[in-house]
Amino acid sequence: MTRITIADAGRHVGETVQIPGWLYNLRRSGKILFPQVRDGTGIMQCVAQKNALPEETFNALRHLTQESSLIVTGRIREEQRAPGGYEMDVEGVEVLQRVAEEEPYPITPKEHGIEFLMDQRHLWIRSRRQHAILRVRHEVIRAIRDYLDSHGFTLVDTPIFTPAACEGTTTLFETKYFDDDLVYLTQSGQLYNEATAMAFGKVYCFGPTFRAERSKTRRHLTEFWMVEPEMAYATLDDVKQVAEELIVYVVGRVVENRRQDLATLERDLSKLESVQSPFPRISYDEAVKFLQEKGSEIQWGGDFGGPDETLLGEAHDRPLIVDRFPAAIKAFYFQPDPERPEVALGADFIAPEGYGEIVGGGQRIHDPDLLLKRIEEHNLPREAFNWYIDLRRYGSVPHAGFGMGVERVVAWLCGLEHVRETIAFPRMLYRTRP
Amino acid sequence: MTRITIADAGRHVGETVQIPGWLYNLRRSGKILFPQVRDGTGIMQCVAQKNALPEETFNALRHLTQESSLIVTGRIREEQRAPGGYEMDVEGVEVLQRVAEEEPYPITPKEHGIEFLMDQRHLWIRSRRQHAILRVRHEVIRAIRDYLDSHGFTLVDTPIFTPAACEGTTTLFETKYFDDDLVYLTQSGQLYNEATAMAFGKVYCFGPTFRAERSKTRRHLTEFWMVEPEMAYATLDDVKQVAEELIVYVVGRVVENRRQDLATLERDLSKLESVQSPFPRISYDEAVKFLQEKGSEIQWGGDFGGPDETLLGEAHDRPLIVDRFPAAIKAFYFQPDPERPEVALGADFIAPEGYGEIVGGGQRIHDPDLLLKRIEEHNLPREAFNWYIDLRRYGSVPHAGFGMGVERVVAWLCGLEHVRETIAFPRMLYRTRP
Repeated sequence: MTRITIADAGRHVGETVQIPGWLYNLRRSGKILFPQVRDGTGIMQCVAQKNALPEETFNALRHLTQESSLIVTGRIREEQRAPGGYEMDVEGVEVLQRVAEEEPYPITPKEHGIEFLMDQRHLWIRSRRQHAILRVRHEVIRAIRDYLDSHGFTLVDTPIFTPAACEGTTTLFETKYFDDDLVYLTQSGQLYNEATAMAFGKVYCFGPTFRAERSKTRRHLTEFWMVEPEMAYATLDDVKQVAEELIVYVVGRVVENRRQDLATLERDLSKLESVQSPFPRISYDEAVKFLQEKGSEIQWGGDFGGPDETLLGEAHDRPLIVDRFPAAIKAFYFQPDPERPEVALGADFIAPEGYGEIVGGGQRIHDPDLLLKRIEEHNLPREAFNWYIDLRRYGSVPHAGFGMGVERVVAWLCGLEHVRETIAFPRMLYRTRP
Repeated sequence: MTRITIADAGRHVGETVQIPGWLYNLRRSGKILFPQVRDGTGIMQCVAQKNALPEETFNALRHLTQESSLIVTGRIREEQRAPGGYEMDVEGVEVLQRVAEEEPYPITPKEHGIEFLMDQRHLWIRSRRQHAILRVRHEVIRAIRDYLDSHGFTLVDTPIFTPAACEGTTTLFETKYFDDDLVYLTQSGQLYNEATAMAFGKVYCFGPTFRAERSKTRRHLTEFWMVEPEMAYATLDDVKQVAEELIVYVVGRVVENRRQDLATLERDLSKLESVQSPFPRISYDEAVKFLQEKGSEIQWGGDFGGPDETLLGEAHDRPLIVDRFPAAIKAFYFQPDPERPEVALGADFIAPEGYGEIVGGGQRIHDPDLLLKRIEEHNLPREAFNWYIDLRRYGSVPHAGFGMGVERVVAWLCGLEHVRETIAFPRMLYRTRP
């Protein structure tokens, strides 16, 4: 007997096949049962008639509990009213494991609190919404990689264990490394990207990054995935162009390939279809003025708070590019604007609908003396940065890059309140389990 | 003026273009200079004639130092004798940064010791061989993802911070997590994969993993990348089949797309072209007998040592699949062979030419009582495994999966002595820098 996946049902219309899966839901209507079977690729509406099955089978199915594992055998039929477009007329059922009535599957259709669901995360990911979100996540990651791979970027993985801090020392996780010193968990692959960009021209790293931030907000995880492209012989303008193209491409791919998942999430597609080039662009100066007019207490020189980002993002139907931030609030490696050294050649992309910053990047210092000065000003341990300074000694060139956080992009595309649902097993200030 | 990459030169024959890059090498021959310029996509052989250039430009180029950054302008010409098939007749040179004579680029064509090169890893990756290896690595990773994405596997990233040990507690890196308990850095995403496989059917995770092993061998890194596919409703046979198909696909992609890099590495292509299905398959029992005949001191019940793996691998022209190991030397979660409970339904793939184990996997226990027994026998903290046990309570099904280490596969395909060259910034017992 052919075993198929539910996603493939359309190629087996009229055939009798087997679907291995789990009981997602069961509706009973006298002599007919309507079990919904999920297999990870979709949900199949099945129809089991009493007179078409051995009595024992029918009764077993009738009393089957949620999430019991089973293999259903039956004939696939087109049915426009069914969610996936097909139904199965059940001819046989093999139950692998019946979930015990005394200890039923803990997640029921009724409402559960978020802490309970997070404790059951290993099961919660079977639910329709969570399933849809993680499929969108996969598409986002594939689209990012496809874009970069087909635009001349070489993937060069950067290390997780790092001897030096990249984004400041206060938010580092430390690990004891054998008998030696401590090492830190990477906050960004960027410094290493600068080395690999000098070897490969255009590179990216894409892996987990770590921030020991004590912030308990809807936009923060302690462990999150970030893609970071970096380009030699490139400037702030290249960052804006590439990041914009990348975002338009990723959103387009998700709209095209994950339409059904977006429907499950009740996502307003028009909000995503409007994400087209060109993105609006303003300077930090203009952003501060705009925010002050909207009632924000921000002053020139301050960083945007979450509410500021929300105000900026809500004003547009696609990401807003804000550039030339005060150098003082940016990392030590930002290239200053030659015409106005108090601002850095950096840019942030603020997502619409209040989803905050999704991209941050800019041009890096390529002058060795200026870099040394900044390392001193920031009280960074020069010895740990010797290799990084070398990049300015041996064929230094203007270079630029950016980071894009996967979880924030997924939260935005899926229309989620909180980033905790955008990754299978989120790690937050008070959560490291399951 | 059009800027091009060296990889694209073939599309610009007869045109005058700019190539931004670095001086890789310079040969002088009276009134002609032959600078080799690298840009990360390739190396361009250039020809600079004294009478075709301003004297100042010619002299600057004549004395230019290795790895100085420059933009060369010139006309592209087909030249079959040139390594890439094209040459550039130089019409202009702009030097961005001349590397100082007093502090020359540290890596010269002469031989350097490995520790010196590892200290200069941020620069060493610019060298032809290292460059080729990392491009092969990128192709390996792309091929793995393409294979899995097109065979119905969903990427579900598993967490790095984990509360429980997966492969035993002796080789864990610990991290302090805020004020709370310690967390561990993941050694494998497998336990989490089992949860996601029950939600998605076929899944994979692909990220860095960590082992605090005090072994200083040519096959070990403390931080390495691993892909781990996992399948619900699957058995040991599925693991063997999928892993074999995956390896054949990956090797084929590398041979097809990275032929020039393999030539740079002087890799014998016939050794890779022979990697075709079917792979030879033997049992652990047979392997022990074979090894004893070859003079190994291994006894039934013992694990293969490095030399044993080398002996096994060298006997074949493609990976060897060894299955049904003694349960006692395998992790707690292996399903025992129902006909012979002292052996586990696991399989290892041993690469040819002495490259050792590249794949390990098998079928997992799906019976809740047996799993509980194993957790007790292994003295594992049951509380931390509650969620994992849940997977056997709520619709348990036979399931199986495997892990494949990227670095070992790259070392094998590139024909390298040591895995340290297969990743941009290797982390080993005595190395966390640069």
